[in-house]
Order: sequence, then structure tokens, then C-alpha cells
Amino acid sequence: MPPPTVSQSRKIRVGVLGATGTVGQRFITLLSEHPWFVIEALGASDRSKGKRYKDAVKWKQTIPLVGLGLGGVSVERVSLSDLQGDEGRVANVVVKGCTPDEFKTCQIVFSGLDADVAGNIESAFRSANIALFSNAKNYRRDPNVPLIVPLVNPSHLSIIAQQQRLHSPPLSKGFIVTNANCSTTGYVIPLAALEKAFGPIESVLVTTMQAISGAGYPGVPSLDILGNVVPYISGEEEKIEWETLKILGGITESDSESDSDGTPLKTFDMHQAGGRPPLRVSASCNRVPVVDGHMECVSVRFHQRPPPSPQQVREALGAFTPEIQSLGCPSAPRKAIEVFEEPDRPQPRLDVKGNHNGAGVSVGRVRQCPVLDVKFVVLSDNVSIGAATSSIINAEYAVLKGVVY
Amino acid sequence: MPPPTVSQSRKIRVGVLGATGTVGQRFITLLSEHPWFVIEALGASDRSKGKRYKDAVKWKQTIPLVGLGLGGVSVERVSLSDLQGDEGRVANVVVKGCTPDEFKTCQIVFSGLDADVAGNIESAFRSANIALFSNAKNYRRDPNVPLIVPLVNPSHLSIIAQQQRLHSPPLSKGFIVTNANCSTTGYVIPLAALEKAFGPIESVLVTTMQAISGAGYPGVPSLDILGNVVPYISGEEEKIEWETLKILGGITESDSESDSDGTPLKTFDMHQAGGRPPLRVSASCNRVPVVDGHMECVSVRFHQRPPPSPQQVREALGAFTPEIQSLGCPSAPRKAIEVFEEPDRPQPRLDVKGNHNGAGVSVGRVRQCPVLDVKFVVLSDNVSIGAATSSIINAEYAVLKGVVY
Amino acid sequence: MPPPTVSQSRKIRVGVLGATGTVGQRFITLLSEHPWFVIEALGASDRSKGKRYKDAVKWKQTIPLVGLGLGGVSVERVSLSDLQGDEGRVANVVVKGCTPDEFKTCQIVFSGLDADVAGNIESAFRSANIALFSNAKNYRRDPNVPLIVPLVNPSHLSIIAQQQRLHSPPLSKGFIVTNANCSTTGYVIPLAALEKAFGPIESVLVTTMQAISGAGYPGVPSLDILGNVVPYISGEEEKIEWETLKILGGITESDSESDSDGTPLKTFDMHQAGGRPPLRVSASCNRVPVVDGHMECVSVRFHQRPPPSPQQVREALGAFTPEIQSLGCPSAPRKAIEVFEEPDRPQPRLDVKGNHNGAGVSVGRVRQCPVLDVKFVVLSDNVSIGAATSSIINAEYAVLKGVVY
Amino acid sequence: MPPPTVSQSRKIRVGVLGATGTVGQRFITLLSEHPWFVIEALGASDRSKGKRYKDAVKWKQTIPLVGLGLGGVSVERVSLSDLQGDEGRVANVVVKGCTPDEFKTCQIVFSGLDADVAGNIESAFRSANIALFSNAKNYRRDPNVPLIVPLVNPSHLSIIAQQQRLHSPPLSKGFIVTNANCSTTGYVIPLAALEKAFGPIESVLVTTMQAISGAGYPGVPSLDILGNVVPYISGEEEKIEWETLKILGGITESDSESDSDGTPLKTFDMHQAGGRPPLRVSASCNRVPVVDGHMECVSVRFHQRPPPSPQQVREALGAFTPEIQSLGCPSAPRKAIEVFEEPDRPQPRLDVKGNHNGAGVSVGRVRQCPVLDVKFVVLSDNVSIGAATSSIINAEYAVLKGVVY
Repeated sequence: MPPPTVSQSRKIRVGVLGATGTVGQRFITLLSEHPWFVIEALGASDRSKGKRYKDAVKWKQTIPLVGLGLGGVSVERVSLSDLQGDEGRVANVVVKGCTPDEFKTCQIVFSGLDADVAGNIESAFRSANIALFSNAKNYRRDPNVPLIVPLVNPSHLSIIAQQQRLHSPPLSKGFIVTNANCSTTGYVIPLAALEKAFGPIESVLVTTMQAISGAGYPGVPSLDILGNVVPYISGEEEKIEWETLKILGGITESDSESDSDGTPLKTFDMHQAGGRPPLRVSASCNRVPVVDGHMECVSVRFHQRPPPSPQQVREALGAFTPEIQSLGCPSAPRKAIEVFEEPDRPQPRLDVKGNHNGAGVSVGRVRQCPVLDVKFVVLSDNVSIGAATSSIINAEYAVLKGVVY
Repeated sequence: MPPPTVSQSRKIRVGVLGATGTVGQRFITLLSEHPWFVIEALGASDRSKGKRYKDAVKWKQTIPLVGLGLGGVSVERVSLSDLQGDEGRVANVVVKGCTPDEFKTCQIVFSGLDADVAGNIESAFRSANIALFSNAKNYRRDPNVPLIVPLVNPSHLSIIAQQQRLHSPPLSKGFIVTNANCSTTGYVIPLAALEKAFGPIESVLVTTMQAISGAGYPGVPSLDILGNVVPYISGEEEKIEWETLKILGGITESDSESDSDGTPLKTFDMHQAGGRPPLRVSASCNRVPVVDGHMECVSVRFHQRPPPSPQQVREALGAFTPEIQSLGCPSAPRKAIEVFEEPDRPQPRLDVKGNHNGAGVSVGRVRQCPVLDVKFVVLSDNVSIGAATSSIINAEYAVLKGVVY
Repeated sequence: MPPPTVSQSRKIRVGVLGATGTVGQRFITLLSEHPWFVIEALGASDRSKGKRYKDAVKWKQTIPLVGLGLGGVSVERVSLSDLQGDEGRVANVVVKGCTPDEFKTCQIVFSGLDADVAGNIESAFRSANIALFSNAKNYRRDPNVPLIVPLVNPSHLSIIAQQQRLHSPPLSKGFIVTNANCSTTGYVIPLAALEKAFGPIESVLVTTMQAISGAGYPGVPSLDILGNVVPYISGEEEKIEWETLKILGGITESDSESDSDGTPLKTFDMHQAGGRPPLRVSASCNRVPVVDGHMECVSVRFHQRPPPSPQQVREALGAFTPEIQSLGCPSAPRKAIEVFEEPDRPQPRLDVKGNHNGAGVSVGRVRQCPVLDVKFVVLSDNVSIGAATSSIINAEYAVLKGVVY
Repeated sequence: MPPPTVSQSRKIRVGVLGATGTVGQRFITLLSEHPWFVIEALGASDRSKGKRYKDAVKWKQTIPLVGLGLGGVSVERVSLSDLQGDEGRVANVVVKGCTPDEFKTCQIVFSGLDADVAGNIESAFRSANIALFSNAKNYRRDPNVPLIVPLVNPSHLSIIAQQQRLHSPPLSKGFIVTNANCSTTGYVIPLAALEKAFGPIESVLVTTMQAISGAGYPGVPSLDILGNVVPYISGEEEKIEWETLKILGGITESDSESDSDGTPLKTFDMHQAGGRPPLRVSASCNRVPVVDGHMECVSVRFHQRPPPSPQQVREALGAFTPEIQSLGCPSAPRKAIEVFEEPDRPQPRLDVKGNHNGAGVSVGRVRQCPVLDVKFVVLSDNVSIGAATSSIINAEYAVLKGVVY
């Protein structure tokens, strides 16, 4: 990694909600090596509150908890002795409850909360004027909350001003930003690359083979999935089908509606009435006995006739450079989309971490589709870019854009 | 099972080629309980020739080899003491080489040979005037060889007369009938049911999740598939895409071409020039860590507008009654297509054998497809209906039609 | 199966507690084909009470629920139309609560209850004078409750008279009989065979590799076991270590202690103070990603010097004929111990059901142990002989002995 | 990693035989980041000879091949542009045949050859005066070849002088050093720690659960191991049983025998006639569906009475500091034995890489054994310390001892 540039010389205090859960553990693993963000507070349920993190968590990561620091590492390199000391380690942080009061020194809070509790807690954090980046699904459909896949539509952050303005009372710093469902995130990245190169997509048919880690812990019972495929994940197909529309859609300004001070209201262009032509999405979701890595078989039909050739598609995917890279988000993958030429790659076990520790996605088998135009497979790391990594890059982008301060 | 009717009172001598392989073992397991067919000869490579079957085979079935008889069981019930005797057991049969001479007392020969040797051997058996039902791919594309999924197109057997007539010298009994690739077989059954009910299909997009047993033994290395998905099976997508056309297509009689004695030539209506409107097929094939049972996610677009509703599709699938049932083939499944209502079924581990020990297929999750018309999943037992069971039903049908005698 | 003899012409009404759980489902699958026992009542938690069984259960067996009858099949063969009728099917039985009142027409009740509720419920059933055969662990250590592996120590049923006599008020029909933990059951069968042939064992060291179905449903989270081994199963090693002693030990009559009417008290010879020399047992338990079938690596040291040779051990195991076979229990395996000669067998996936649908066990790799005397592997079907099958054979034995009437 | 000390400022040219195989790929992955060793030559079969490595290998590591350099990294930090250049990458090295001529500029050659070819090739390399560190089994039993587990008995390197002297003609630089079988390596490390602390062990009984990667590629067919346990690995138990004796035994000097120049002959104290009391080892080996990481359940009996308590054993294991650490071998693990306190750890999926990327081993569940004295589980990374890492540390030790120069 190159030495920190000016834009990287930051030290930002962050908190994590749902810190003992699967997503929370992943947030902590990533933050413990983050160049800017420093873990200031961990929140979990009352059962964990008041305990040292190591005593509250059932740690399920392959990286030992004991080795993890609090982040901010490339800015002020902590000495080895400090790192080994009691208080510089995540393991020794005393877990708090999930109330805004306990997080008021945090500039950013990440939420890995389960959906059944995320609604009220996240809302309370926003009302307490805290910038919250959430992996939960609760506010993804909210017309004032952006749903951001950082390699695709970080510019949707622009809706935050309206979210803050319409809040009662209006907020100066607090907001909620959500990232997408893991299976949406993976496949929407190549879709965005294709739309950028070849114009709007007309139809996409996606069949997923999703890893068990996508369901959290304890998640999928082993009797259900060992040597098996389950052709159903509750709510997943619906999420893919509408999240894709919100993410790939634009934001339009109303001609007629405005808020009380006369500012025209902005709307997500979900139904493609305005800017982009309609996009039809059909998803079939399956659970497979894989630990990490969602595989998705994707077929695409473009509006453009004749459609691009497989070779043009391959080149466009490999050349895709999202804004987060040029802007300098430290967690942005060096390559957004790794394109494999081998006929049998990517594969989850071999390749899920290969593209920058799971921050980018991998595409393979780009070829003609006899029914639509082009088909390919995409592999994404559902616990990285599909979850915590996306939240973190969204926060980095917000920092660089001055939305968090 | 009902008592044998007149048409079932038969005792037909059969042989198995490739008897020690994966498909061969499955043939033997099925034949050992068959009401008509009696195992007369087993053929394998020179390495096995002359050995007792039990010493030649590395038995990989969950039913112990030692318990298996020679078939023909419902016709002449062998007494228990006979069954335990040395010579009434498959285990003690002395394996022969794969030459027609050693099989000349067989009325039917089943081939579970690998493709690299099947070409010459199967051709030699046909030339020796032996009726051969093959699971190998070698002759599937032959314009005079029927490619039969017994629940779909057994009537294609009618091409045999031409196959025999064009052979030099013409044959009275010998012929080759092939059954389809396992992944084609599973999904083409519901397609046939849908075409029967709603007329021609215009497009089908299928994504497979295929079991390791489909690749034989040793087959897929465990390092490739344990906790993994491989998004590629060599040649498989091509097979699905063209086999579907041959199976669902008709047989047309030429206006202009005829053979030497003036009989008009019959042709498989592969390209839909004649009878049926074009059908476009797009397949994406994946290997998953499942032992038995191919899952396939299928999306279909009909010619008929408006298309049938999911409920109509569900009913048509459940009501599908192939000719092999009405004709009384003893290995025909009681139900061709089991339709599940539960949202998460069928599943390979629970349901692969559920539909009549794998002789029928299972369909679930019938629902609207936002891109094409209707989508569903189909589960088929790749080692049963997807392989040996199909060959055996084809042979039963040929017996009932008087083609084998 | 031979035609029913006089002793088999019975029709006994039975109930199942915990009918919707994993063990309960297995009880029902077995009872639906039982020659004597007819399902009269199914009990489950309040959540299920009042529902049809098919609506209350999440059926996880590979045999479809819809096909299962109520048992008693070989005695009065129900006609096909009856079998297809609404009320002759397990699927349509209305589930009751687990109270003795609702089971008073049952002559035998099987318990597949979880340990956290089994204690009070089972006790209430006994007090209501009902014969109860339990798979739960709660009463295994009770000094008046036999712990029976039916292929090993059914004669321990003799303690029931004392259990009934000491109950307040004394019972005429009610009692509790337990069967052993699944991992104990599997390996104690060859141990019993060895003690019968060669006298007492001095030491046994057993390392288990246990299937996930042993933990019930939802049981082991897939994230814990997929591609993994967990070297720990809570409480399992202790169970193996003391259950072995109770099962292989005798019952001794006290010289000094007697109950109020002067009958000398019987005691399980747990600590080998009396009859048999001490036996030391060391167990190491592991969970492995296998669906069904516990594998156990066993090393044994005998008291007898010189110890038997591996070949003598092999013969003694193969020749072992437990009393339940000679007595004619219908669910007794035809062969108690199947001994494999192949170096790499038995294996769970191939062999778990091979020995009489899991009612017997399989042993392989009998060879010298350089530290103790002899070592071997044993495979048992943890959901059959390791659970429901044992309870059922115990009940059959009790019927034949006139203890249930 | 701390900055290189004087002893680390080296640049040693190394070669790899069997470079395209599983062990070879692991050698290359490790060497590509090695501070001293620089890859100079790669050898493989004639099929690969002359091709770029990337075209010859079917790369199966989770680290992308394209990123790997040639090693020697901490000594002369290659600039980024060089790293990206064509020739500084392993991927672009042209593969040679396995003949000494093509490796004569190498100071050390590592062999990941299969046993069926390793015998002749390794012997030829030694005769060509090349220092060869082999992972193959062929010379492990040779009375002049050390069998070294680097955390246990690197001092056995002292036999090399005799190996060179007895060679005809005598060698100045060439020799063969072997490392142990993967399953031996893992469990012998805690055994050595225990012998160091508590004196000789009398008996050890070990049951292994071994990962599929131990069998190489293609190795174990998936049909054999998916959802299964195979209780047999050909030759493995014998290897563990005798390799343990050679590794834990001493080297004794003969009183009577000497070579031609009168130097007394040294012998491995395999049979404990001399120095150490007899050690009895009993191994039972199983293959389980785990990708990486051998789990072993070990029971030990000491000569010392009373034996150490579990707590003393735990402390002795945690405190074990092998000579390779104090001497400064760069690939030595920071902690030789990680001792877990959690009841259910270590586990292969979570912990196999945890102890210094698999260079150390992990022990858990230390407790009393009712039959022997103490039992525990040990987890080792069979592809790291169990294979390539051991060879590399052995070579580092040889460099530091001046045996390689």
C-alpha cells in the first residue's frame, strides 16, 4: 500500500452496532486495519453490555481476535508494545448498549444489526444527529434514504440533504445510508459497468448460488444444506428485483412538489418513468453448501441493437473504474471487476478473496446467450463487498465528499 | 406394485456393457429387481474380464452388492435358497469382454460405456444384430438414431426401421437407441408437459446445479468441489441446447429424398424448419457439492399470448401423463412430475428419490418470471431417470411396441 | 420377511411424544411399517396441538410423509383404498398435547422428547400407569430405570418390577425404559460381543466422528461444520464413559438392603464392585460433516492374556447373536454386526443403512493395536439403532417377555 | 515482521522440483515471500518443460499466481515496476526438466515430487552435489538420511556428514534431508514438547481426521468423501507409527562399527535399544471432508509416575520453544504450540492458518485420559508445517548451521 497521502491523513472515531453478530465481527476485522477509522465504541444487546468484547462474542472469523487493534493504523502507527497492551485491542473494549448516548463521541456509526431491531435503533441514532451507515434492510426502501453500492452509485448520497432537511427537527449531521443486499451488490456491479459502456439494459435474468455465511449465525441448519441445495431464500428474490431498480436508477427533481421552504423534492427514479428506459429483472435464489462467496449466473439483454459482443463485454467489465477509485477511498479495490479467461473460473473457494480481499468482484465465462444477448457468471464476497466493506467504503466516500465531518 | 398382467409376463435376457462403471452399477441395481429383464451377461474392460463381478467392481452403491439377484423377479419368484446360492447372484457372474460374440444370447444390451470407447463397441453390437440401449453420447447426434427421454418422446423409436434399413447389410433386430444427457433429461420433461398443455415454447433459459455423481467415478476431484461451486461442465451447455431441440422436435418425412428402394427418408426436425416454431435454449451449467440430484432453475416463454398463469402451469405439470405410463412400462414412475407447493422444495438430499425412486422428476416454485413468462425449479435423479432408468424404460417401451423380439 | 408367526400376530396401540421432532419423525417412519404396533396418538408441544400432523411438522425424512400409514401392516393388511383415505395416514392424525390423559388408550408410548421437557412429562406418564420407552437422557442414571441397548442387555428389563414396586403408589403397568446415547449404542454392541466371546474388557479407548443428525434439528449450524471438524460435543464423552459401565455391568441383589416388604434390592453393578472386573473407558468425541452415521475408532484391551487375535475378534463379532434375534423381535437386524473385510469400509455414506436399514452395526479394519490389544472401526446408524429403532426393539422385547400387556 | 538482522541478510538461489504439483505450488507460494530464498529454477515433468509456469500449472491456491514474485523480498526490496515486469514473476518462469544440469546454479533444491518418481531424481540431484530438501517419502527410512520435523529434531542434521562421507564419491555439498509425513508432523510436535518437559512417553494412541489436501490433486474423488468419512489411508498408519520413533529417537555412535577411515558409524536410535525407553505408537487414520488441516485426537501415557496433570501439560505445551526459534529461522512460527482454552477449539476451518499461517500447531481439550494419562487434540496445517513449510525451515536451519553454503 502506498504511503498515506494528504487525503488519507485522518483519524475518525467510529462505532459499531450489532458488534457481536456476523456482520459486526466483519466490521471489526476490517476496521482494525483501517487507515482512517478508529474503533471508539461497540454496541450489542443487553446480554453483552458491560462485558469485554472477547467475553461477549463467539468469534467466528479465521483471523484470531486477539491480534486485532482498533484501527487508524496507517496514520499513527501504534508501537508494538501498545498493540499488545490491554486497552489497544478490540478484544478488551467494554461493550455498550445500542443507545445514541453511548456513542455520542463517534463521528460515524456502522450498523450490523439484525432487521428485527434495526428499525428503531437506527432511527434513534439518526435523530441523535449521528451519521449511520447500515447493512440492515429496514430503511432501504425509504424514499429519502440512499441505497448505495459503492462501486455503482455513491452519487446517490446527494439525497442526504433532503433526508436531513425533512427530518423533524432538521439534522445537521445525522442521516442513514444503507448498502444493498449481498446478492444484489455482487451482480449489480457488472450491470453498472455494462450500462456505462453500452447504455441501458432491458432485461436481466439472474440465478444465484449463495453461500451460507449470507444467512448469519447460527443461520442455516447444517441438516438443511450439507450435500444439498435449497432453492429458496425468503425475500431474497424480491430484494434483488427492486433493489436493482433503485440502485441503477437516477434521482429526479420534481417539477411540482417541493418541501415547505420551496426546495423541489428529489425522487428515486425507481420506475424508470423519467430518465432511463424500463428494466426488467428476474431472480432465482438458491442456497448452496459454500462458506463464503455468492455465485450468480447472469443473462442480459441490452436496448442497444446490435448488442455488444462477448469480447466487448469482457473489455468493458475489465476497464470499469468506479468513482470511489479515482476519488481515493482507501478501501476501494484496485480492480473493480476481475475478468477471468479460464473456462471454469471464478470459483468461490479459490477466488472469493482474490480480488483485493473481497472488495472487488470477479466475472467469468462471458459468452453469447441464445435467449437474451450475453451471459456470464459473477462471484462476490458476500461478507466483504456484499456487507461490511460496502458500508465502510460508503463512509469513506462520505468523508471525502464532506458529508461526514 | 400390482400383480403382473399378461403384458408383464416376460423373461428377457439382457446384458450390460461397462458393468463395473458408475452407470453400469446403476443398471445392475435396477435390473436385479426388474420384473422382465434377467441379467445374462456383464461386459467390462480387459482388466475385469474373467473375474467374478464382485472381484472386478469397486462397488459404490448404497445397496449392498451381495444382496442383488439377476432380475426377472416378479415373473418367476426365485426361492430364498436359490437367491443365496452362488450362481443366482450378480456378485458371482463372471465378467466378459465387450464383444458381440460374448453377448449373442442377449435380447437386449444396455451400454454404460464411457464415450471414449462406446463408439466402436456399440457400432459392433448393432452390426451383430443386437438391440442396444445406450447411455453414452456417441450416437446421440446420428440422424438415424433416436435420442429418447422416455417420459417425452418414445415415439421417436419409429426412426429405427430406417436405421436398420440403411445399415449395410440391413438389420432385422440390431439398432442403437440413445437416451439423453442427465441434465437435459431432467428439465425437458416439464418442458414437454408444458408444450402438450400450452403449445410450443419460444425460449427457455436454464441454470443447472448438478450433482457430482453425474461425472462418474473418480470424476470430480474433491479439492475442486468441497465447499465450492464450479461454474462450468465441459460440453454440457451445448448438449442441453441441441438435445432439447432433437427431443422436443418432430420427425418429418422428406418430400424429395428417399432411399434406394424408394422409401421417403425421415429426418429429425432439429431446426424447426417444418413443424414446430423455433425454440431458443440458453443453458448455464454448474457443478455443486451434492451427491445425487440435478437442480435446474428454468424460465420459459411461450408462443401463446397471453401465456398460462403459474397456477395453470402447476396443474398442467401435475396432470402430465406420458405414454409409457398408459402403455404399462413397469419402470414408469407412478407420477411423471411431482409438483411441490412448499416454497423451499424440492431439495436434492430430501427429494431426489422421493418420486418413485428417482424415475419421475419433481418441480417446485412455479411462479411468474418478470423477463420471460413462468419460472420454476426441477429436480431430477441424474443416476436414475437421468441415466440407467431412462435406458431401461426405453427398452421396456421397445418390447411393448414389438421392436425388440 | 417370513410370514407372521403366532407370536407376531399382535396389534398394539402406541403413541409417540415429541412427534414433530427429529427423533419423533424417525419413530413415525419406523412405526408406519411396523407389523405389530399401530399409531394411536401423536403428542407435541402446544404450538402443534390440534393441528393435523402434516401441518404441524417440518418433515425432514427422505421418505415422503404422504405415503406413511399407521403401522400394524403385516397383521391386517389394509387395503389400498383405505391407505389412500384420509384417516389411515399419519399425515392426517390430529396432534395432541403431551399429557397422559390424551394417551390413555395407548399400550405403549415412545418418547422422542427433548431433555429439557422430558423429565416431568415422562414421569407423569409413568405415574399414569403407562409403559414408556424413552430416547431422552433424563432417567438413564436412575437406579431403578434400565438403560438398554437391545442388542446387548435387554435382560436389564428385570429391574422394572422393582421400579414399579417402589413407585408410590405401586404401578401395575407403568414404567420407564431408556435406551442409550447414540454414540454409546454403536460401539457398545461390538464390545458386548467381545466380552461374550473373550471375557471382560479391561480398557477401551474410543474416538468418535459423529454425524450432524445426532444433534437434532436445527442442531448444528452449517457455519460450524461445513468443511470442518468440531472436536467437542457437550456432555457426550461423559455419557459414553458411564453409560458403557451401566450397560455392560450386571444387576446384583443386595445382601443387606431390602424394600418395605422384605424383597432384596437390586442394584446396577455400575462400579464393578461385584461381578465384573473394572472397566476403564476413555472417549473423545468429534462432530464431522456427515448427515447420518457415527464412525468410532475403538481400541480394546482384554483381561484375558494372551488376548484374542484380530482374526478371532473378527469371527466373534460376525458370529454374535443377541437374544432379541432368537426371541423373534420383528425389528431385530438379521445380522447384529456386519464385519467388512475391505480395508476402507464401512463408510457412513455407503454403509449406514446397509445392515438391515440401520438396525445392526458394521465393523471394519479389525487389526492389532500396538498400545492396547485390538483396534477396529464401528459404524452405526445414529438415527436408527442409535435412537428410535432401539426404543422400538426394547418395546418388542418387553411385549414378548409379557412386561407390556 | 522486524527488519532483517545480519543473519537474515542473505540471498540464496533455490529451485523447486515437482513445481506444478500441489506441494510444489505451496513451495512457490511460500518462497515468493521468503526473505532469503530466491526462486532460480522450477522443474516439472516433460509435459510442462519449456512452458511458462503459468501455462504449465493448474493453479489451485487461493492466492492469485499473478501476484507472486521470486522471493528474497526483505533483502532487496524490488520496486513495484519491476514486480509488474515480465521476468520478476513466478508466473513467467520457464519450467525446466528435473535434471541436475538444469539446476546447477541453485544452492538449495526443494522437492515436491511424487513418490513414484522422487527416488531416482532426488538421488541424481544428491550425486550432482546439490543440497536437496524433500517432502517425498522415498528416503525417509534411509539410515543416513535425517527425517526432520523442524520444531522437533533439527539436530538430526548432524547425520549429513556421514551421508556425504559414505557417498561414492564423497560429497562436499550434496545431501538429502527429508521432512515427515503430514500426519506425523502435526502430532509429534506436542509429543516432543511433552518429552522435553516430563521425560519419555511410554505409549501414544492417535486417531486422525485428515484433510483432503493431504492427498494432493486430483487426490480423493469427491464421490468418496463428500458427506462421508473414509476410515483408511493407505500406508498412513505405518508411517506415523515408525516415523515417530525415528523423529523422537536419538542418534547413537557405534562402539564397534566404523567406516573405512575409522570414523565410528552413527545410527538412528529407532528401536530405543540405546538411549530412550521403548515407545509404543498406535495410529488410526481417517479421511474427512475438510479442505486443509489435520485434526488428531491423542492419548499419551508417560513413563514418569505420577504423570503430569492436564494443567502442567497445558503449560508445558504453551511454553515449548524449539531451537529454530532461538536460532532465528525466518519461517519459524512465533509460537510453536498455540494452546486453546475454549472447549471446542481448535477447529480446522477457523484455526488452521491462525498459528502463524500454519507454521505452528494448535492444541486444545487437554484433559485426563481414563485409560492412559492425558489426552488432547492437535490441529496442524498439513500443507504448511505438514509439508512445504517444514522443508523450508529445515533449509533455513541448514543455512544457519553452515551445512548449506
